[in-house]
Amino acid sequence: MDKRTLKKLAAIVGPDHLTTAREDLLCYSYDGSALEYLPAAVIFPASTAEVGAIMRLASTERFAVVPRGAGTGMTGGALPVEGGLVMAMSRLNRIIEIDRDNQIAVVEPGVITGRFQEEVERLGLFYPPDPASRKFCTIGGNVGECAGGPRAVKYGVTRDYVLGLEAVLADGRIIKTGVRTAKGVAGYDLTRLLVGSEGTLAIITKITLRLLARPTASTTFLLLFDTIHSATGMVGTILSNLTPCTLEYMDRTALRVVAGNIPFKLPENTEALLLVELDGNPRVVEIQAEELTGIVENRPGLLEIRRAGNQAEAERLWEARRAISPSTFKLKPHKIGEDVVVPRTRIPELVRFTEELAAELDLIILTFGHAGDGNIHVNIMLDRDNPRELAAGRTATHRLFEAVLKMDGTITGEHGIGITKAAFLDHEIDPPSLAVMQAIKQALDPLNILNPGKIFRPAANRSAGIA
Amino acid sequence: MDKRTLKKLAAIVGPDHLTTAREDLLCYSYDGSALEYLPAAVIFPASTAEVGAIMRLASTERFAVVPRGAGTGMTGGALPVEGGLVMAMSRLNRIIEIDRDNQIAVVEPGVITGRFQEEVERLGLFYPPDPASRKFCTIGGNVGECAGGPRAVKYGVTRDYVLGLEAVLADGRIIKTGVRTAKGVAGYDLTRLLVGSEGTLAIITKITLRLLARPTASTTFLLLFDTIHSATGMVGTILSNLTPCTLEYMDRTALRVVAGNIPFKLPENTEALLLVELDGNPRVVEIQAEELTGIVENRPGLLEIRRAGNQAEAERLWEARRAISPSTFKLKPHKIGEDVVVPRTRIPELVRFTEELAAELDLIILTFGHAGDGNIHVNIMLDRDNPRELAAGRTATHRLFEAVLKMDGTITGEHGIGITKAAFLDHEIDPPSLAVMQAIKQALDPLNILNPGKIFRPAANRSAGIA
Repeated sequence: MDKRTLKKLAAIVGPDHLTTAREDLLCYSYDGSALEYLPAAVIFPASTAEVGAIMRLASTERFAVVPRGAGTGMTGGALPVEGGLVMAMSRLNRIIEIDRDNQIAVVEPGVITGRFQEEVERLGLFYPPDPASRKFCTIGGNVGECAGGPRAVKYGVTRDYVLGLEAVLADGRIIKTGVRTAKGVAGYDLTRLLVGSEGTLAIITKITLRLLARPTASTTFLLLFDTIHSATGMVGTILSNLTPCTLEYMDRTALRVVAGNIPFKLPENTEALLLVELDGNPRVVEIQAEELTGIVENRPGLLEIRRAGNQAEAERLWEARRAISPSTFKLKPHKIGEDVVVPRTRIPELVRFTEELAAELDLIILTFGHAGDGNIHVNIMLDRDNPRELAAGRTATHRLFEAVLKMDGTITGEHGIGITKAAFLDHEIDPPSLAVMQAIKQALDPLNILNPGKIFRPAANRSAGIA
Repeated sequence: MDKRTLKKLAAIVGPDHLTTAREDLLCYSYDGSALEYLPAAVIFPASTAEVGAIMRLASTERFAVVPRGAGTGMTGGALPVEGGLVMAMSRLNRIIEIDRDNQIAVVEPGVITGRFQEEVERLGLFYPPDPASRKFCTIGGNVGECAGGPRAVKYGVTRDYVLGLEAVLADGRIIKTGVRTAKGVAGYDLTRLLVGSEGTLAIITKITLRLLARPTASTTFLLLFDTIHSATGMVGTILSNLTPCTLEYMDRTALRVVAGNIPFKLPENTEALLLVELDGNPRVVEIQAEELTGIVENRPGLLEIRRAGNQAEAERLWEARRAISPSTFKLKPHKIGEDVVVPRTRIPELVRFTEELAAELDLIILTFGHAGDGNIHVNIMLDRDNPRELAAGRTATHRLFEAVLKMDGTITGEHGIGITKAAFLDHEIDPPSLAVMQAIKQALDPLNILNPGKIFRPAANRSAGIA
C-alpha cells in the first residue's frame, strides 16, 4: 500500500486509528489457527460510514480488506493471506440497544460475546451461543463464522439468533438485511447468506439478535464410563428422552489433560465422561434431573453419576471442559484441531476410527466436544518440527475428512473453512454448488477485495492449520 | 410453446405426464391468491433427472418454468404470470427416509405436510411447522415460501428445520446443499438462500429435515377478553414468563365468523380471545398450566379462562382457528389477506390502526393470527365488483404496509412476496439490498426462466391480491 493510499485511509479514521508499525502489524498477523500473515496496515474504523469510505477507497485502489474480531478463529479467517488492510472492529463495540419486551438486541460487531451475555442476563434475558472463547471473541466474528458452542444441542448456533444485519458491500454501499421481528420472508435471505460467509461477501457493521428469556435454574451432571464406547453410545439414549442444554464428551486423553481442574476424584478405570447440563425453571430442571438419572443409572458401562452440588462446583466442571483445548499443549507443542460433525449415531464409529488412526500413524489423537449434536473436536497432537509427526498429522487430517464424509458428516461444524480447510472444501461440496458459491462471490465482490484467499482458495500447501 | 418443444417434454416424462388440455391448464392457473394465469402446459416429473432434463430444455429453448406444490400459497408464487410451463411436483411425493435415531428425514417436495407429520409422529418424532393449510400443502411449497404457522412462537418456521436440499439449477445442473447433521458451516449457506426464494433460484427436488422428539402431552387454554387491547396487551406478559407452543389471537369479527365451531358458550361481551397451547412431557405441561393460570387470572379485562377438557375439545378449538380464513367469505365475497409482522409490543398499536382504518375507509377489516410472534393476519373484506370497496381495499393495503414498516415490522411473515406484494418489496428493502438480490438472481438464473415475474416485478396493476 503506497503512502498516498495510507494518507487517504488516515483521513477517513483519523491518524491515530491507522497503523503500519511493525510491532502493531505483528499483533494482527496471527489468530487461533497459529498461522501468520503480516498485513500492510491495520485500520480501526468507528462507524459504518467510515467502513463505507474505506471500502470505496479499497474498490478504487483495489486493495484487500480483511475484517477481524478478536482473532480467536481456528481456521485463519481473520488473516491477511494476500496482504492488504486488516480492519479491526474493536472500536465498533457498542451494545446499541437491548429491547427487553421484544427480546431483541442490536449490537456492533466488536462487542465481546461474554460481555454481551452478562448484560442481557442482568435483564433476565439470554443469548445462548457460547463458543469456548466467549470471554474474548466478538459477536461479529461469531456471525462471520457461524460459531456454535456446547449449548447448540438445545439452542442452536449463532445463525439461529441473527434476525438482521447492517453490512457494507465491497463497493462501500450499505445494506440492511432481515427484520426486527420474529418472522420475515421479504425477498432472498441475505441475512443467512452473510452469516458464516467469513467476511468474503460484505463487512458486517450492525447485528440484530433474537434473545430468549433467561432460564432461572440449571444443574450439571458428570457421567463416568468404563469405555469411550459406553459413553458415546449413551448419547442417543439420552437425547431420545430429553433435551439437555449441553451434552459434552471427553475421552481419556482429554480427561487426563484437565484432571486437575475437575473437583471430584474420578474412579481409576474412567475412560470417558459425559458432562450434561439441564436448564429451565427450577421445577422443570428437577423433573429433567430425575428423568436423566432414571435413563442412565444401571446402564452397562456407567461407573458413576455425580451431580454438581452447587453453582461453583458446576462452574469448575465447565472450566475443565473449556480448558481442554489450551491444555492439550501439555502433550505436544502443536496440534491440528478439527471440528468435524457426524450424525450422532455414528459418533462411536468416528471415535473408533480416530483410535485406529492414532495407533496406525503413531500419533496422539484426542477427541472431545459436543456429542449432543455429533460435533466432535478431533485434536491431532504433534511437534511440527518433527517431520514424521508433521507428515503423519497431515495424513491423519485427510483420512479423517474422508471418513467423516463417508459417514454423512461435514468437515466443519462451527469453525468455518477459512484458510486451513480451503483445500478440502471440494471434498464436501459438489462442483455445481461450488460454482454457485463462486458466482455469488463474484456478484457481490467482483474485484475480490473482501477477505481474498478464504473458503475457495486451493491452498494445498497452507492447509495444515497446525496450532 | 411450439409442438416440437412439447414433443421433447413428453419424451422426458412420458406422454401421460404432460398436458396442454384447456381443462387441465385451468386447474393449474390459480392458487390461494385467487389470481389466474393460464400456463402453456403442465408437466409432472417423477425424478430429479427428469427435472434436470426439463431445465436443460428450458434453458436451450428459453421458456419459463414455474414449480408448483399444492397451490395453497397466498401470494401467487405458483402462478405462471408470464406463461410457460407449470411444473407440478405431485409425483415427487415420496418420504425417502425417516432416520429415527438421528431425528432426520429426507423427503421429496410433493409430500403433503400433514401426511408427513402423521408419519413422523407415529415414530415418536415431531415436525413442528404447521401452516393452516397443512392438510393440503406440500413440504416443497413450504420450503419455497418459508411457511410458518401457529407453533412458530416456540418452534420457529420452515427455515429452522431444513438442513439440506437437492435442487436443480436453471441450466439443469443438480446441486446438493447443506448437511445431514445438526451443524455445518462449509461454504456459503445455499440451503437458506433457497428457502423462501419462491422457486426463482432453483427447483428443489429433495429436502433433508431436522425433526424433534414428539411432545408427549399438550393442553389448550382459551382466554376471553372484554377488549381487543386487553387481549393483545396480555401477549407480552405471557411470553416474558413462559413459552407456549402457540399463542393465537382473534378479534371480535374473526370470532363471529367461527362462533359455531367453538365448543363453549362465550360471554356476550367477549371482544377478543387468545388461544394458548402448552406442550411438553405431562408433568412439565402441568407446571406450565399452573404458571399460565397464575399469570393471567385476575388481570383486568380477562372475562374467563377455559381449559379444553380433553383432546377432542382442544381439536375443536384449533379447527375453529383454522376455519377463520375460509369463513371470512361469509362477510364479503372477496378479501385482501395480509400477513404483516410487528414487534410484539406493537400489536395493540397495529390493531388500533386497522380499526381506525376500517372506520375511515368504511371497510370490514378483521385481525387474527400468531400474536406470539407479532405475525397478524389482516383480512380486508370487500366485494371486488364494487368499485368503491375495491379502491378502498387497495388504499387500506398501502396504508397498512406503510404503518407496519414505521413500526419496525415487515410486510410478510410467512406468505412470501410472490406477485401480490412485488410492487411493495422496495418499500421494505433498500435499493442496494434489492440490487444484491437481483445480482444473485442474475448469477443463478441469467435467462430469467425460473418462475419469472415473482418477487421483483414492479407489478403495480397486479398487486391487489384479492381472493
